[in-house]
Amino acid sequence: MINKLITKIQKTNAPIVVGLDPMLSYIPEHIQKAAFEEFGETPAGAAEAIWQYNKAIVDATYDLIPAVKPQIAMYEQFGVEGVKAFQKTVDYCHEKDLVVIGDVKRGDIGSTSAAYATGHLGKVAIGSKSYSTFSEDFATVNPYLGSDGIKPFVDVCKEEKKGIFILVKTSNPSSGEFQDQLIDGRPLYEHIAEKVAEWGSDCMGDSYSYVGAVVGATYPKQGEVLRKLMPKSFILVPGYGAQGGKGADLVHFFNEDGLGAIVNSSRGIIAAYKQDKYKEMGITEMNFADASRAAVEDMIADIKGALESR
Amino acid sequence: MINKLITKIQKTNAPIVVGLDPMLSYIPEHIQKAAFEEFGETPAGAAEAIWQYNKAIVDATYDLIPAVKPQIAMYEQFGVEGVKAFQKTVDYCHEKDLVVIGDVKRGDIGSTSAAYATGHLGKVAIGSKSYSTFSEDFATVNPYLGSDGIKPFVDVCKEEKKGIFILVKTSNPSSGEFQDQLIDGRPLYEHIAEKVAEWGSDCMGDSYSYVGAVVGATYPKQGEVLRKLMPKSFILVPGYGAQGGKGADLVHFFNEDGLGAIVNSSRGIIAAYKQDKYKEMGITEMNFADASRAAVEDMIADIKGALESR
Repeated sequence: MINKLITKIQKTNAPIVVGLDPMLSYIPEHIQKAAFEEFGETPAGAAEAIWQYNKAIVDATYDLIPAVKPQIAMYEQFGVEGVKAFQKTVDYCHEKDLVVIGDVKRGDIGSTSAAYATGHLGKVAIGSKSYSTFSEDFATVNPYLGSDGIKPFVDVCKEEKKGIFILVKTSNPSSGEFQDQLIDGRPLYEHIAEKVAEWGSDCMGDSYSYVGAVVGATYPKQGEVLRKLMPKSFILVPGYGAQGGKGADLVHFFNEDGLGAIVNSSRGIIAAYKQDKYKEMGITEMNFADASRAAVEDMIADIKGALESR
Repeated sequence: MINKLITKIQKTNAPIVVGLDPMLSYIPEHIQKAAFEEFGETPAGAAEAIWQYNKAIVDATYDLIPAVKPQIAMYEQFGVEGVKAFQKTVDYCHEKDLVVIGDVKRGDIGSTSAAYATGHLGKVAIGSKSYSTFSEDFATVNPYLGSDGIKPFVDVCKEEKKGIFILVKTSNPSSGEFQDQLIDGRPLYEHIAEKVAEWGSDCMGDSYSYVGAVVGATYPKQGEVLRKLMPKSFILVPGYGAQGGKGADLVHFFNEDGLGAIVNSSRGIIAAYKQDKYKEMGITEMNFADASRAAVEDMIADIKGALESR
């Protein structure tokens, strides 16, 4: 799957991923209204609104992008109905041949991580049959429990040729509270990065490993160091746009081959219609997905410009 | 909810929690067969088997115990159908007036943690209405992202009088890989424990905080230190039984008041019928839940004995 991700990045010339993190407050009035008329102001109504919103954004952008990253929390908050909308979104993105990165940040003790890996990336055995259930292509994973929480994911990645991105240095303001603490003179996130390189070393695609890392766009200097510590790991870079990261901050997340990083933007793309910039282009919430398409084009140009001028 | 948990522990005289972590391999043949006959060897069939298995165990043990801890990974692996069985289990345990600890180990950046906190512990707003969706009483939370990943959970705990248990020192063999690393001469887990005490200090129940910690039974010495660092935090102690923890290892997880800890056993109780000890009592897989009840009684006696002889 890392090979497919790279092929798609090269084909679209866009090392970006659209974060499908639908908040009800982002979803245009007319979509919410239609969903609530059909299902009431219920979790099923919210799930329908999310799904219609996602579908319109995917339809408007899928030819420009290699991948999407649905954040499962935004679905899980609506309970079972929300999880159904997550599944529907994953399935639809597969239909559109997009690589799907499930932003699930799971991680537990070995046998439990194995269940998460099975559900999100693998196949679950039921009697004499087996099923792919959530069936994302990549999942994000939390490393706090150490190797035996990670290995079951790596095993499933090898079997299924899928991938993971392990949290190394997250984009949020307080990420340093534990991640930056010095151990033998070096921050915890560097120790974890070394483990990421190690875990990934025996499950390689053609040029990059199935095991990648998450490093926030909001920490470009750390990104530069981490790029070198994990030369064969793709870095998933959240925090672009709404969280403050800019194209120029991102160049050091990439290797010399122009690969090695994929930059996520969520709100900046899916709720682009709320920005003055796109309103001035005559976009309203009725054609919100046009703003998403324009925002994808702007993001690609920003990153391409930064990479070319480095 | 911490007050309710304590009241129930005192009433049952049992500081224990039953881990409802159903693997298909634990579920007796006749239950699987009936479920597969109705729904086929499908995720819906697996979900039905899980649900019938859980229900029988809850029915056989609910009067002896204060709480259950369903591990969501074991449900999530079966996709949407599995998540429905999780919800059904949570709802049924509420009917039986059990405290429900959702072992979900969620944790993300602020806005995303807020969505998880809403979905698992809070109420989600949909139009003019609001809904409790998964509606557990407690959730387990991963601290790797720092304060702004934790605060949204704490806020919901205050609003809803619910609780969380934050991973401090986990029960698995490789938990030390990062958690034991020394920072200013003290392991990371101690730094996190201090934060747990701080986060919990302004959301207190009558005698303990809404904010607790997870510390594995497999690390009794660390438990002793951590008990003192977080005097007002309840400690959820996994790793008893199948993972190797024994009653005698557990005494230091408790405060002098005999409270402050709640010990989980999963496989040791829900799959007790597979143990020779219970087979010798004439229990077969047909009356597997009787073994679960006997295992609960044995666990209570083991812990009570250890606490009395300390």
